[in-house]
Amino acid sequence: MATKNAFYAQSGGVTAVINASACGVIETARRHPEAIGTLFAGRNGIIGALTEDLIDTGRESDAAIAALRYTPSGAFGSCRYKLAGLEQNRREYERLIEVFKAHDIGYFFYNGGGDSADTCLKVSQLSEETGLSIRAIHVPKTVDNDLPVTDNCPGFGSVAKYVAVSTREASFDVRSMAKTSTKVFVLEVMGRHAGWIAAAGALASDADTPLPIAILFPEIPFEQDRFLAMVDSLVKEHGYCTVVVSEGVRDTDGTFLADQGLKDAFGHAQLGGVAPVVADIVREGLGLKYHWAVADYLQRSARHIASRTDVEQAYAMGKAAVEFALAGRNSVMPTIVRKSSQPYVWEVGSVALSEVANVEKMMPREYITRDGFGITEACREYLAPLIQGEDYPPYRAGLPAYITLKNEPVEKKLPDFKLP
Amino acid sequence: MATKNAFYAQSGGVTAVINASACGVIETARRHPEAIGTLFAGRNGIIGALTEDLIDTGRESDAAIAALRYTPSGAFGSCRYKLAGLEQNRREYERLIEVFKAHDIGYFFYNGGGDSADTCLKVSQLSEETGLSIRAIHVPKTVDNDLPVTDNCPGFGSVAKYVAVSTREASFDVRSMAKTSTKVFVLEVMGRHAGWIAAAGALASDADTPLPIAILFPEIPFEQDRFLAMVDSLVKEHGYCTVVVSEGVRDTDGTFLADQGLKDAFGHAQLGGVAPVVADIVREGLGLKYHWAVADYLQRSARHIASRTDVEQAYAMGKAAVEFALAGRNSVMPTIVRKSSQPYVWEVGSVALSEVANVEKMMPREYITRDGFGITEACREYLAPLIQGEDYPPYRAGLPAYITLKNEPVEKKLPDFKLP
Repeated sequence: MATKNAFYAQSGGVTAVINASACGVIETARRHPEAIGTLFAGRNGIIGALTEDLIDTGRESDAAIAALRYTPSGAFGSCRYKLAGLEQNRREYERLIEVFKAHDIGYFFYNGGGDSADTCLKVSQLSEETGLSIRAIHVPKTVDNDLPVTDNCPGFGSVAKYVAVSTREASFDVRSMAKTSTKVFVLEVMGRHAGWIAAAGALASDADTPLPIAILFPEIPFEQDRFLAMVDSLVKEHGYCTVVVSEGVRDTDGTFLADQGLKDAFGHAQLGGVAPVVADIVREGLGLKYHWAVADYLQRSARHIASRTDVEQAYAMGKAAVEFALAGRNSVMPTIVRKSSQPYVWEVGSVALSEVANVEKMMPREYITRDGFGITEACREYLAPLIQGEDYPPYRAGLPAYITLKNEPVEKKLPDFKLP
Repeated sequence: MATKNAFYAQSGGVTAVINASACGVIETARRHPEAIGTLFAGRNGIIGALTEDLIDTGRESDAAIAALRYTPSGAFGSCRYKLAGLEQNRREYERLIEVFKAHDIGYFFYNGGGDSADTCLKVSQLSEETGLSIRAIHVPKTVDNDLPVTDNCPGFGSVAKYVAVSTREASFDVRSMAKTSTKVFVLEVMGRHAGWIAAAGALASDADTPLPIAILFPEIPFEQDRFLAMVDSLVKEHGYCTVVVSEGVRDTDGTFLADQGLKDAFGHAQLGGVAPVVADIVREGLGLKYHWAVADYLQRSARHIASRTDVEQAYAMGKAAVEFALAGRNSVMPTIVRKSSQPYVWEVGSVALSEVANVEKMMPREYITRDGFGITEACREYLAPLIQGEDYPPYRAGLPAYITLKNEPVEKKLPDFKLP
């Protein structure tokens, strides 16, 4: 294959380490000028490709690209934009192919979750149909850890570490105050469908540092009486407890606990988080003093406390994607293959996109204790390696010296395209 | 003065570095066995003294005490318990003196904010009246930074660093997503009366890393129209913005913004944070997509991202307290004296407790920009040194290896005492 340009885009919710994958893609591509010409990035993800709003990453210095490894968020912008199926939406896929053709793009690296794996697969299929033969490689990323086949997803380990560290710290705080003040601390974390992130809260407690922690998983229907009995027993035994609640917890009717039909003084619906709802249940049911926190974006952008394992894997996935493409592979995704948990040993594998697209990996029931409020040893063995190691960014004036790229635009060659 | 025992207690809301002060007190006391015998700690603060529930810190190893330097929260337990004035409440002060006498305590080190400075002063006064001559030294601590005379308070710098780092990280996240998703991120931080913590959010943006951030201070009455105009202009110019809101923001009538008279489906009052209220105002007023977070205890327990300056100052205050006592001083508090901001130079000073007790230091109006949504250069010059430097705790299995002390009780010598 002659030298071709490449295209890279970030998709969906960003993470603390998606830029480490970008760094792996770009640095590896730069080492192969014989095969890869310019590496373009999509401004704001796939929208950048559709609207031909491309960024020339070649204008960024090696130092700037290296800094991506320790910069959270999506350096080129991301988007929540799911392309519909090929049948309903041939126009958008054809436009992608047109843009790729206009810019002589032979490699498509798409960094995202299940939806983007599906888009990547379709681009690959359509490019074959049109004889363009673009090598389309998906680079895995989700904080939710819900991609199949790969042992875990880059992005998850750092959120897990943030949640575990924060849960330990806040538990120490509550323990100090419980005699006269707060007895229950409630921390809301992400994970609408799968409880992987909530499960990480349980890592805060271990043999060296036992702490009373109850987890509310989206997989386990919320039963108020059983929950209150658990909190009551923890507080009676330890004087306090911490509750880590997934935003996706539902009651036994399937209604999100966060959706409590709250009204403000004017009767307008008020959307709250689930943490204040759980805290209020504790107050009403047990009369205990509480505090609550909602981590929201802080948890997925907390590069300052990223997991070194996660950073290394994110980089490795980006690097492998380019190497796969250079080896002539197409329509695949690099994966993380666990060889051993203790000591933790992993290697890079791969999977066909057809096996990944639109498949969600839920938490196995055997990872959740029978009472539904904790994690089993099997779960702990799975999670523990993913938060191992620290990888601190450099600091300047007390703050992480994260990079903002120049993101210089590439001249357009095609007529405008209106998004549907 | 013959060898006497000492008593140390932690008071009020704990911080990421109050144990660093404890470490400074205990390590310094251990270097002076000729003057200080056993150092007792109050279990759960002053309540431990009143109920004669003392902890023998002598049973803790040097390594355990050294680990306090990097362990957040109050290692001996703290409490929210304000002793009433001497006139109304002579009985409690007399009990303190009794307990101190029974355990041959000649040194009283009290680690807290304005209330505890007042208690410390009264203990000193009463001990002089009773001829016991206890040397009472106050060790400053508050996340709110509202103690007078001292240039800043240990505990504040680390919260400030957490808020500045988190605001920078979340702003990067929102910037990535703004094209198709979240455009406004709202972060709620502590500081019911003073805006010091909220002000730290503005440090996230600097000349190297400019970010569109609006601060809502408790000192500035909230005007909805002006706020929406500010958010609108930031989003129009930058595509997104971050709002850092103090929990203590009030509207022009003086009502807390967090107190919105929310009712749940059953008509019960629902106490929410201020972040969801501000987010909802943005949605209703501008129709912009938002996310919000409430940092709550995470911010004050985040030892993993503590300011090195703060840790050093917290330790220095504890050390100075013991040195003051050994030098025969009484009824004083060590202070931080700023000699220069650039470069940052500080030294230990002192102030009489009568000048500190029950005095609050508010943010000067000239530290807030005229529009009320930002900080001035003078404020930045004041704040910047306080977040400088990192001081990472050791990690074990991916988590900070914080210490939990044995906290062995001391045998009681007095009859029980009922708290009022």
